[in-house]
Amino acid sequence: MTTGDDTKAAGEEMYALVERLYPLCRSITGDGVRATLDIVGEYLPLRVHEVPTGTRVLDWTVPQEWNIRDAYIADAAGNRVVDFAASSLHVLGYSVPVSATMPLAELREHLHTLPDHPTWVPYRTSYYTPDWGFCLSQETLDALPDGEYEVRVDSTLADGHLTYAEYVVPGQVADEVIVSCHVCHPSLANDNLAGIAVATFLARALAEQTPWYTYRFLFAPGTIGAITWLARNAERVERAVKHGLVLACAGDPGRLTYKRSRRGDAEIDRVMRNVLQASQRPHEIREFTPYGYDERQFCSPGFDLGVGSLSRTPYAGYPEYHTSADNLDFVRPEAMADTLALCREAFSVLDRNRRYVNLSPYGEPQLGRRGLYDSLGGRSDAKQAQLAMLWVLSLSDGTHGLLDVAERSGLPFDTVAAAADALHDAGLIKA
Amino acid sequence: MTTGDDTKAAGEEMYALVERLYPLCRSITGDGVRATLDIVGEYLPLRVHEVPTGTRVLDWTVPQEWNIRDAYIADAAGNRVVDFAASSLHVLGYSVPVSATMPLAELREHLHTLPDHPTWVPYRTSYYTPDWGFCLSQETLDALPDGEYEVRVDSTLADGHLTYAEYVVPGQVADEVIVSCHVCHPSLANDNLAGIAVATFLARALAEQTPWYTYRFLFAPGTIGAITWLARNAERVERAVKHGLVLACAGDPGRLTYKRSRRGDAEIDRVMRNVLQASQRPHEIREFTPYGYDERQFCSPGFDLGVGSLSRTPYAGYPEYHTSADNLDFVRPEAMADTLALCREAFSVLDRNRRYVNLSPYGEPQLGRRGLYDSLGGRSDAKQAQLAMLWVLSLSDGTHGLLDVAERSGLPFDTVAAAADALHDAGLIKA
Amino acid sequence: MTTGDDTKAAGEEMYALVERLYPLCRSITGDGVRATLDIVGEYLPLRVHEVPTGTRVLDWTVPQEWNIRDAYIADAAGNRVVDFAASSLHVLGYSVPVSATMPLAELREHLHTLPDHPTWVPYRTSYYTPDWGFCLSQETLDALPDGEYEVRVDSTLADGHLTYAEYVVPGQVADEVIVSCHVCHPSLANDNLAGIAVATFLARALAEQTPWYTYRFLFAPGTIGAITWLARNAERVERAVKHGLVLACAGDPGRLTYKRSRRGDAEIDRVMRNVLQASQRPHEIREFTPYGYDERQFCSPGFDLGVGSLSRTPYAGYPEYHTSADNLDFVRPEAMADTLALCREAFSVLDRNRRYVNLSPYGEPQLGRRGLYDSLGGRSDAKQAQLAMLWVLSLSDGTHGLLDVAERSGLPFDTVAAAADALHDAGLIKA
Repeated sequence: MTTGDDTKAAGEEMYALVERLYPLCRSITGDGVRATLDIVGEYLPLRVHEVPTGTRVLDWTVPQEWNIRDAYIADAAGNRVVDFAASSLHVLGYSVPVSATMPLAELREHLHTLPDHPTWVPYRTSYYTPDWGFCLSQETLDALPDGEYEVRVDSTLADGHLTYAEYVVPGQVADEVIVSCHVCHPSLANDNLAGIAVATFLARALAEQTPWYTYRFLFAPGTIGAITWLARNAERVERAVKHGLVLACAGDPGRLTYKRSRRGDAEIDRVMRNVLQASQRPHEIREFTPYGYDERQFCSPGFDLGVGSLSRTPYAGYPEYHTSADNLDFVRPEAMADTLALCREAFSVLDRNRRYVNLSPYGEPQLGRRGLYDSLGGRSDAKQAQLAMLWVLSLSDGTHGLLDVAERSGLPFDTVAAAADALHDAGLIKA
Repeated sequence: MTTGDDTKAAGEEMYALVERLYPLCRSITGDGVRATLDIVGEYLPLRVHEVPTGTRVLDWTVPQEWNIRDAYIADAAGNRVVDFAASSLHVLGYSVPVSATMPLAELREHLHTLPDHPTWVPYRTSYYTPDWGFCLSQETLDALPDGEYEVRVDSTLADGHLTYAEYVVPGQVADEVIVSCHVCHPSLANDNLAGIAVATFLARALAEQTPWYTYRFLFAPGTIGAITWLARNAERVERAVKHGLVLACAGDPGRLTYKRSRRGDAEIDRVMRNVLQASQRPHEIREFTPYGYDERQFCSPGFDLGVGSLSRTPYAGYPEYHTSADNLDFVRPEAMADTLALCREAFSVLDRNRRYVNLSPYGEPQLGRRGLYDSLGGRSDAKQAQLAMLWVLSLSDGTHGLLDVAERSGLPFDTVAAAADALHDAGLIKA
Repeated sequence: MTTGDDTKAAGEEMYALVERLYPLCRSITGDGVRATLDIVGEYLPLRVHEVPTGTRVLDWTVPQEWNIRDAYIADAAGNRVVDFAASSLHVLGYSVPVSATMPLAELREHLHTLPDHPTWVPYRTSYYTPDWGFCLSQETLDALPDGEYEVRVDSTLADGHLTYAEYVVPGQVADEVIVSCHVCHPSLANDNLAGIAVATFLARALAEQTPWYTYRFLFAPGTIGAITWLARNAERVERAVKHGLVLACAGDPGRLTYKRSRRGDAEIDRVMRNVLQASQRPHEIREFTPYGYDERQFCSPGFDLGVGSLSRTPYAGYPEYHTSADNLDFVRPEAMADTLALCREAFSVLDRNRRYVNLSPYGEPQLGRRGLYDSLGGRSDAKQAQLAMLWVLSLSDGTHGLLDVAERSGLPFDTVAAAADALHDAGLIKA
């Protein structure tokens, strides 16, 4: 993992953000999303969008907004044996309101547990089929005596809005890179508060400079949020979006995992492979599948964007996934810091991966006359730097970018980019 | 190997057909071919074609027709020491008539044996160079005392016809798949009576339904027969023939061998690879060579058809090849049944390998709204079925067929095809 | 390695040529190059070109001409402790004139040694930065007592010419193959007197026949010589040069090394791979890099010629490289003979690698009728020859050359070419 004081500090700050977001009850709509975006808004000047219930978005319709104030199961003595106030996971996401008393046998049909992990509470939702329910540990369930229980879900399902936010870092060109994370999961730390935190700090870091590309960060509920954004930005997607990255499960201690775009060899795919390999971090690169996070939407065949997905231990790849064990102990500051560092390295390569044209393509230009040999004489990496210049000159025929040069030569991208800068300054190549 | 009562019954029936065909003396022309087609005609309503001697067919000319009534070598006492009546292999194919008496030393120049397999009789022909001869075992030859022998070949080589037959299973489209087997070898069971039997029962099976493609079965003598058919069907080949398979050596107990078309990546090649791999049968896939059976003609560069060849132990790959040991003991009912089953699986995939277009390509369509999640809820393979739908939607951009989907996703073709059917029924994709 | 009396004789003759050239003091200009070309001119009727100082050649300018008569370091007693007369390596190439007396401490700044190889003298130059210096062994330096030394370089750096030579073997077509070697290194045997010798004898061998291509041999100083030739032949390069080979380090006992052209799959690259593999010589094939010999210039992106480079132990790959140990003991007659033989084999393949069109592409033509089976009956390689004919017929569709046939079939190129000749004679294919 990357070390250094700055990185360590970033890890701690991201962890603190995760801690603040953790208790909120998020869903695909509602005030939990708004409260989440309010907190992220303290770090970034977000632009928040509210899209009314019933709006047609591609093949979907924005659903009713769900809000919840309280929910519990109380025993005959009035003791709350399952209480939403203790954890937002206890209530089935999008539960319709209920207020009833019923015997345990009848109640069981609405209870969800994880028998294989008897102390963990599962995360369950029912967005598009009206239902109500509670999630609890198997141990809690096993301890419940038979008898009558009071059941109450104080929720509202009504016309309202779907909420998402954007933050744009203007670049030197209008071409965009989208960075997307989902904000719809309740008290789950790795999936996806760590992703939100990494996206937030990545945006802040990019905003400290003027990157080459314009970076558009998207904080939106999963699936319906991405679909809503795509529906409202179809023209931009067509015209401006060139690359993208979906961030999820960004904070667990596992190795980094990059999932390729549907295209499989999009520029972001090649950048990620180069950076992961060059960094010598343990990592895995996976082929695209149409299942996972919102890359499903960005990579749908009509859009077919060059959007990959970066995780540490990926989707459903760890037992804590979608359970109460995906908690504040499961994510680590240094893991988030490492994910952030990798993203910065990758976007640094992406930003510099341009095609040049050798202006002196017939034979080698005389580098010595221009001080391009001498100027390197005192550097210990002079030989590599010189070789990088020859490679950039050799491949700068209008069809190869600097990443191509790095890959074919086996030289580090930074060395190749520095060589290109020197040649550009000498007037030997042009972009 | 495939099991099941139907398969077993098919194996027995094919074996019975091989037994009936075995004694006949076939060659590239003559009554042996006609008798063979008469018997096959009891299973299928064949259309038999007679092409006159002297007809120009591509670079070739239909030769004179050869018929034989009797042939033998008799010793001084009049005992037939080699007798055509015992086996059609004993006479050199296309032997000119001869009636003579000569000493053994002179006769030897016309005798063919297999010294390495002293009890086997070789199969030899001389179609285009006038000659006569006998094939016998080395043991028989060694036992012959010196002396005078009466030699007689009662054959006719005269203007007549070349005979071949076709059987067509009409499909839903006029595009054709040709299935070809050679009918010119005399008493050799694997090469190619097993091929004839598998082709016959494959045709019957396909005729029980209306397949997608039109399947044209060709029963013709090797080389000159395929060339004659190509010469007379050049326009159809150009217009309608899309795929094809040559069947030979289809009944020995060895593993299946598929030889690719000259193109190497024709659709039939990809189908065969998929089906052989998915079936987990032991098998081998070989690259094209311009030597072998009639794929040589179908794949000649002017036609360059997508025609592969299916065998068990292939051409010249077993010691019994082109000898009397390629007999009724060498071919097995269960092996023929297995070859038949593989062909049916392959054509089932070929028939369903269509390209669809996702009609809702921007983002994922909402499958739940259409009951495509619920409808699968009760099935144990629901997760795979759902994933298959996402894959079909993802790749149905007009450039990928269902076989592409199966290969890229790693899902079974049947699962992918079922997903496509469900999506098609829901109006989400069109062919 | 190739054996045989002719080869052995060629090896001895090449070695004798290396011995004659060894003492001369070559540089990128000057009389040492002219003397070298005079000697090569005894073997080949060279056309020598003189290009004036100051001539603009691509991005470069022809430098002043350097000549040297004497150079030494003498001790206080007048004894020459380092003497150019003993070895041309002792003086820094392109040393400016100097005549001075100085203490050893001051002199040291102009002395070059190889501490890791204390008995060897390094080879050093300073073509484009005015400087003077001496190269000597570390042992010699260590033995020098402190004190005053007389230093003298009797050289001239003045307007003059750059000298290079060409020799052309006319072919049946005007398309050219260039064979290039550098002639600028002083007393170094492998780099590049062996290359000069192999090029000379290769030219003689090709001139004994009329090859298909026109072969142009270039004897020129490294870098600036190739750049000068390219500048003066840009139109020819564009129009006529189709293939090329740079020869360097052609005489050491190591295995052969072929470095691909920038294109990576140019015809010369494929020919070299085929010939090296077929020859079963130990060898290595390397990817292109823009560092090395004059392939750097020929493969610059503006020209991007199909020019590879053949060496034995390549550039900087042996400790003796650019030292006095690259001497007459380091190169071997049999190694040069082997390099020569490989070049002849490669150009023989290149010359015969033509595309044919099958004039009878529909089905197989009847080879027997044309005597193409019979004619081969008596040869032990008849089966392979027959198969080669089928392969040539199969692939001669206008898109494949004979090398493609050899590679796809796995047959030796010579067998394929012989089959093509037979088919061509029979009128079945045309070029």
